[in-house]
Amino acid sequence: MTVRAAVAGASGYAGGELLRLLLAHPEVEIGALTGNSNAGQRLGALQPHLLPLAGRVLAETTPEVLAGHDVVFLALPHGQSAAVAEQLGPDVLVVDMGADFRLRDAADWERFYGSPHAGTWPYGLPELPGARAELAGSKRIAVPGCYPTAATLALLPAYSAGLAEADAVIVAASGTSGAGKAPKPHLLGSEVMGSMSPYGVGGGHRHTPEMIQNLGGVAGEPVTVSFTPTLAPMPRGILATCSAKARPGVTGDSLRAAYEKAYAEEPFVHLLPEGQWPATASVHGSNAVQVQVALDEAAGRIIAISAIDNLTKGTAGGAVQSMNLALGLDESTGLSTIGVAP
Amino acid sequence: MTVRAAVAGASGYAGGELLRLLLAHPEVEIGALTGNSNAGQRLGALQPHLLPLAGRVLAETTPEVLAGHDVVFLALPHGQSAAVAEQLGPDVLVVDMGADFRLRDAADWERFYGSPHAGTWPYGLPELPGARAELAGSKRIAVPGCYPTAATLALLPAYSAGLAEADAVIVAASGTSGAGKAPKPHLLGSEVMGSMSPYGVGGGHRHTPEMIQNLGGVAGEPVTVSFTPTLAPMPRGILATCSAKARPGVTGDSLRAAYEKAYAEEPFVHLLPEGQWPATASVHGSNAVQVQVALDEAAGRIIAISAIDNLTKGTAGGAVQSMNLALGLDESTGLSTIGVAP
Amino acid sequence: MTVRAAVAGASGYAGGELLRLLLAHPEVEIGALTGNSNAGQRLGALQPHLLPLAGRVLAETTPEVLAGHDVVFLALPHGQSAAVAEQLGPDVLVVDMGADFRLRDAADWERFYGSPHAGTWPYGLPELPGARAELAGSKRIAVPGCYPTAATLALLPAYSAGLAEADAVIVAASGTSGAGKAPKPHLLGSEVMGSMSPYGVGGGHRHTPEMIQNLGGVAGEPVTVSFTPTLAPMPRGILATCSAKARPGVTGDSLRAAYEKAYAEEPFVHLLPEGQWPATASVHGSNAVQVQVALDEAAGRIIAISAIDNLTKGTAGGAVQSMNLALGLDESTGLSTIGVAP
Amino acid sequence: MTVRAAVAGASGYAGGELLRLLLAHPEVEIGALTGNSNAGQRLGALQPHLLPLAGRVLAETTPEVLAGHDVVFLALPHGQSAAVAEQLGPDVLVVDMGADFRLRDAADWERFYGSPHAGTWPYGLPELPGARAELAGSKRIAVPGCYPTAATLALLPAYSAGLAEADAVIVAASGTSGAGKAPKPHLLGSEVMGSMSPYGVGGGHRHTPEMIQNLGGVAGEPVTVSFTPTLAPMPRGILATCSAKARPGVTGDSLRAAYEKAYAEEPFVHLLPEGQWPATASVHGSNAVQVQVALDEAAGRIIAISAIDNLTKGTAGGAVQSMNLALGLDESTGLSTIGVAP
Repeated sequence: MTVRAAVAGASGYAGGELLRLLLAHPEVEIGALTGNSNAGQRLGALQPHLLPLAGRVLAETTPEVLAGHDVVFLALPHGQSAAVAEQLGPDVLVVDMGADFRLRDAADWERFYGSPHAGTWPYGLPELPGARAELAGSKRIAVPGCYPTAATLALLPAYSAGLAEADAVIVAASGTSGAGKAPKPHLLGSEVMGSMSPYGVGGGHRHTPEMIQNLGGVAGEPVTVSFTPTLAPMPRGILATCSAKARPGVTGDSLRAAYEKAYAEEPFVHLLPEGQWPATASVHGSNAVQVQVALDEAAGRIIAISAIDNLTKGTAGGAVQSMNLALGLDESTGLSTIGVAP
Repeated sequence: MTVRAAVAGASGYAGGELLRLLLAHPEVEIGALTGNSNAGQRLGALQPHLLPLAGRVLAETTPEVLAGHDVVFLALPHGQSAAVAEQLGPDVLVVDMGADFRLRDAADWERFYGSPHAGTWPYGLPELPGARAELAGSKRIAVPGCYPTAATLALLPAYSAGLAEADAVIVAASGTSGAGKAPKPHLLGSEVMGSMSPYGVGGGHRHTPEMIQNLGGVAGEPVTVSFTPTLAPMPRGILATCSAKARPGVTGDSLRAAYEKAYAEEPFVHLLPEGQWPATASVHGSNAVQVQVALDEAAGRIIAISAIDNLTKGTAGGAVQSMNLALGLDESTGLSTIGVAP
Repeated sequence: MTVRAAVAGASGYAGGELLRLLLAHPEVEIGALTGNSNAGQRLGALQPHLLPLAGRVLAETTPEVLAGHDVVFLALPHGQSAAVAEQLGPDVLVVDMGADFRLRDAADWERFYGSPHAGTWPYGLPELPGARAELAGSKRIAVPGCYPTAATLALLPAYSAGLAEADAVIVAASGTSGAGKAPKPHLLGSEVMGSMSPYGVGGGHRHTPEMIQNLGGVAGEPVTVSFTPTLAPMPRGILATCSAKARPGVTGDSLRAAYEKAYAEEPFVHLLPEGQWPATASVHGSNAVQVQVALDEAAGRIIAISAIDNLTKGTAGGAVQSMNLALGLDESTGLSTIGVAP
Repeated sequence: MTVRAAVAGASGYAGGELLRLLLAHPEVEIGALTGNSNAGQRLGALQPHLLPLAGRVLAETTPEVLAGHDVVFLALPHGQSAAVAEQLGPDVLVVDMGADFRLRDAADWERFYGSPHAGTWPYGLPELPGARAELAGSKRIAVPGCYPTAATLALLPAYSAGLAEADAVIVAASGTSGAGKAPKPHLLGSEVMGSMSPYGVGGGHRHTPEMIQNLGGVAGEPVTVSFTPTLAPMPRGILATCSAKARPGVTGDSLRAAYEKAYAEEPFVHLLPEGQWPATASVHGSNAVQVQVALDEAAGRIIAISAIDNLTKGTAGGAVQSMNLALGLDESTGLSTIGVAP
C-alpha cells in the first residue's frame, strides 16, 4: 500500500515533525505541503533539517491543493481545522493535529476555547480502552494534546485498576516547541534558557478538560484534575509528574502489577524497571513513552511519572500511530522507539 | 562592625556562592578558606569567577586554621559539620550550610540520613514565625535546605491562615548546581541539557521531613507532604509548584489577602502582582523569592508557586541573611533582590 | 556626589542591565525611565528581575522627560540617538549605548549602516591608549560594541607591542541577548537551544569597521579583520577567538610579557595564569574581561582569546566605566569583577 | 545480505550512537556488545534511549566474545584498538572509531599521542579524493575524528580547486558529547550550560595533524592549520568556522562554482543556497553536512563553514557510511539526512 499524504501547516513545529516521520514511513508518499503566511517559500528555508524536502515549495491551503490525497494532516492553529475538513470528502482520512475535535463536551469546549464547538472525532490515543477499535477504518482522527497524552499514560493503569482516588494533581514541564514557532518575547532563547516558569496556572490551561475526559473515562467516575504546566529550558520533551491519593489497601506490589499488566503489550509505552526513572532526553525524537510509578506510603499518594517527546508521541508520532490504525497498517509502521541521545 | 569570616568548604558551589556574597558584604572580612581534596590549590583555578580572591590558596580544614574568626561557615558534605563545630568555641558564630542540624526529630534524621542525629540548631529561615527572635544573638545556625526554603515560602501563608488542608503536594524543578560539584555521569552536561528527569520519588528525598517540620509548625497540626524533585537543564534556580486542598469557604480573594498580609513586610519575599508568575531567571543570583498563588475552583486546590536561586536564597544568601540577624546587623546587609537576567 | 541618571530605552536588554548596575552604584540616583512601544507599562512586567524598580512606569522618550538629569543613557535602536541627543544640553553627560557615534570614518558608517553619519564621540573603551584622558570630563560618550570590546582587548597587547601581522582573524560566539529582545523566529528558544550558527559572514557585520578602527589605531598601521560572529545557545557572554600571524622573532615569552605588561594595571582586564583559559560563565554579570594568549609555533600564529559578558563589559558595564571617568569618579565605582557562576 | 556486527565499547556516546544507527540499518544484525567497567550491566541502564536493546547485557571485551561477527566496531579509548584488532582475523571488517590508525606519519602520532604508532588504516572519509576506491572491500577502516571531518569538508573544495593559500585558520565549537561520558568536573552540566570556553589552544589538539594530513593531501602541498576547539553549551554538534587567504583572482563566483562542483554528487554533503548558513540543530542526529562559503573581499579571505553532528557524521554515521562502502552496500544504506529539530 502507498498512501499519498498532504500536510496543511507544514512550516510549524508540528508539521515539520510530521514530515520528518512521514519521510521514514514506508507506505507514505508526501504530497502537497501548504502554509499560509509562508506560502511560496522553499521548505529548505523554513525547515532546514528536512534536507530531502529542501526544494519543495509551500502552497496555499486550498481545497484544490489538498484534493487527490488519501490522507490529509491538519497542523493548523486552533479553530481553523473544521473549515478545511468540511471541504475534504468523506473518503479522505483527515487527521487533525489541533484541538478542534478532541472534546466530547461542547460546553467544555466553549468555556476553554471561547468559540462554538465543531464536533467530536475519534480520539487518537490508541492506548485508551476501546480506542483501537474506534480508530480502525475511521476517516477522521483527533490527535490528542501533548500534555494529555503524557498525563493520561502516566495515570491510566492506576485509574483503570481502581487504585487511585478521583483527584489527580499533575505538574508537567514542557520544552518550548510546545508553544509553537510564532515569535513572542517570552519564548526568546534569552528568556527561556536558564529559566523555569509556570503558565496557565489554576485550572485555565486548555488541556485540562481533555485530561478530565480521558481519566474520567478510564476511572468510570468523574475525576478532578489540578494541572500546572511549566516551561522548561529545552526544545522538546514533556515530563509529567502526576499523583493521586491511593485507595485504601493499595500496596507497592499491587500498584506495580497494575502498571505491568496495563502496558505489557503496548508497543510504545515502556514501564521502566524499578529504580529507574523517566528522562525526556531518552525519548527525544522517539514515539516511546517512559513510565514509572511509586507509592509514597507516608503521604498516601501514588506518584506516576511519564516522559514523552511532545512533538513525536505528543503530536506527530501519535498522529502517525493513529493513521496506521485507521489505514489497517501495523500500528508501529514508520515509528521508532529509539531516542536521539545524548 | 567588621566580622572576620572563615569558610570551610570553599571549593564547592555553596562555598563559592557564599564567597561571592561575602565579597559584597560591607561588614565582613574574608579570612581562612579551606577545602579537603582541594587544599593547596589556588581559588582562581577552582572558582574562576571570583577574581578578587583568585590568588588565595585553600588550607586544610583544621581547628587551627578556623581559629580566630568571628563567623565560621561550614559548606561541608552532610555528616561532617558536627565534628568541626565541636572544635569551635561557643562564642564563635557557626553557620552550617549542610543538613546536620536542621531536623528536630532525631528519628526522622536517622531514617533519612542513616546516621546518628547530631542535634538541632536554630533554623535559619527568618520568614518563619518566631525565627527572627530565635536567630538574634544565636551562635549556631542551621541553614535550611534549598527545596524546603522554596516550598515553605510558597505555602506558608496558606497554612498560617488556615486555608489549606494538611496534605501538600510539591513538585519542584532544580538547576543542576543543587546536586553539587562532584562529577557523576548523570550530571554531565551531555546528560542534563535538553532533559528533565525526576529523582528521589515517592517520599525518599531528604528534604521531605524538613518540609513537614516547617509546614506542620506553621499549620499547627501534622502535615503530610508528597515531594517530587526534578532536575532541570539549567545551572541554578528552583521552581516549586505546590498545592493543597482548599479548606471550605476559601475564595480567591481570601487567599490573596492572606498572601499579601504574610509578605507585606518581608524584605526578600515578593508576592507578584496578579497575573504574573515566578520565573527562576528573575531571581538568578538574587536573594529574592518570587511567589504567586491561585485558587483552582474546579479542582478545589490552592496552587502556590515560588522561584528562588537555589544557591542564593536557597543556601548562601539564606546563610548570610541569618548571619546578619545573629550579629544584630540589618537583615538585608550585603544582600540584593536584583537578579542577573536574561 | 550624587548624579541623577535617566535611561532612554529601559525595556530592552541593554537598558535592563544598565539599571541593574546603576542600582548598585553608590553615586547614582535613577531618574526617568523611558520606552517607546512599552511606555505606560510597569517595569516589573518588563524587567521582572529588577525588584527594587518593579513599581516604576516607563515614560515616553521626550525632551521634557529626559530634562533635569546629570546623565542620560541612550539604549535605543541604531539611528535614533542623534535626534534625542541634540535635544539635551551640552552640560548633560550623554552616554550612547548604540552605534551612532562610534565610527570616525563617515564612509564606513554609511557603507555598513546605510544612513548618514551622525558624528563621532569619545570612544568609551578606557583600555585603549589615550582613552582615559579623552573620556575625563567629556560630555559625550560612544559606548563600544560588544564584539569590538572583546576582540580589541584580546589582541591589543599583540598589536601595541608590534608582535602581530596586520591581518586579524576573529571568530566570536555570542549569547543570544546580543541580538536584543525583539521577537524574531530564529531567536526563539526552540531554535537556539542546542544550536550553533554563524551570521553576518564574509565581512558584513557592522562591528567589523569598529574592530578595524580600534586595532589599526593600536597597531599604527592599517589592519584587516576577518570577523565571523556566531550565535551560541546561552543568554549572555562572548568568547572571542582571535588570531594573527606572528611577526618574525616572536616567542612565547615575549608574547606573554607583552600581555602582562599591557594589563598589569587594568582594573577589569585579567590575564589568566598560563594554562588557564577564559570561560564566559566566569564573567557572567561581571565587568571583568578574561584574557589568555598562546603562540602556535607550527602555524606561526598568535592566538588570543577573551571572554566578556556582552551585556556588562560589552555594553552597560562599559557605559558605567566610562561614565565614571567622565564624572571624575574612580573608574571602578559600582562595578564588580565577580561573576555569577555556575 | 545480513552482516552480524559487534560493538566493543557500547556504553559510551560513540557506541550508543552507533547502536542507534545500526538498529535502523536494514542489513545489520546486532551481535555482541561489550564494555569494560560496565560489563555485566543492562544496556537499558546505560543507554536508556535504546529501548529495543534495553534487555541486552554488556559482555567483557574478549576475543571470544567478539568472534563470529562479520564486522567489529571499536569504540574504545585511544590506544586500546590495536591490541583488540590484532586478535580479530583478517577476514573480519574492523572499524576503529578511535584515533589509533588515522595518521600516516608515525612521528606526528608519537608527538600528539605520546605512544608508539600502531599503523595506518584506510581513512574513512569517503568524500576525500580516492577514498571510496580505497574503502571498497577493505577489511580495516580508521574512522576520522569529528573536528577533522567538519573542517576538511568545509575547506576541501577551496583547496582542491587551488583557490586558497596553505594557511588555514579553524575555530570550531563542539557539543559536550565530543568529550565523552567519563565524568570530569569541567564537563558537569553546571559548568557547561551558559558557557563557551576554548581548550587545546595553540596547536596542541590531537585533531590538528589529522586536519593537516587531509587538507595537505587535497591541496597537493603542505598546509599549516591553526586550530582552536571550543566547548559549546549543547550536547551535540560541531560548527567549524574555517578560513584561508584567497589566492589572487578568486572571485565569489569562482568560489561558489568550486563548491557546487565538489559537492554536486555527494549524498551527505549539502551546500546550502546562497544566503543560508549552517546550523548544528539542522543536522542533529543526521549524517548530513551543511556547508556554506563566502569570500570576504576586504579581508582577502575565504570563509567556509560546516555543521555536522559530531556523533553521527562525525563518528558513528561516518563509520557506517564507510562500512557500507567496504561491504559493497549502497553508501547511504541505513543513514539519514534528516535532522531532529527543533
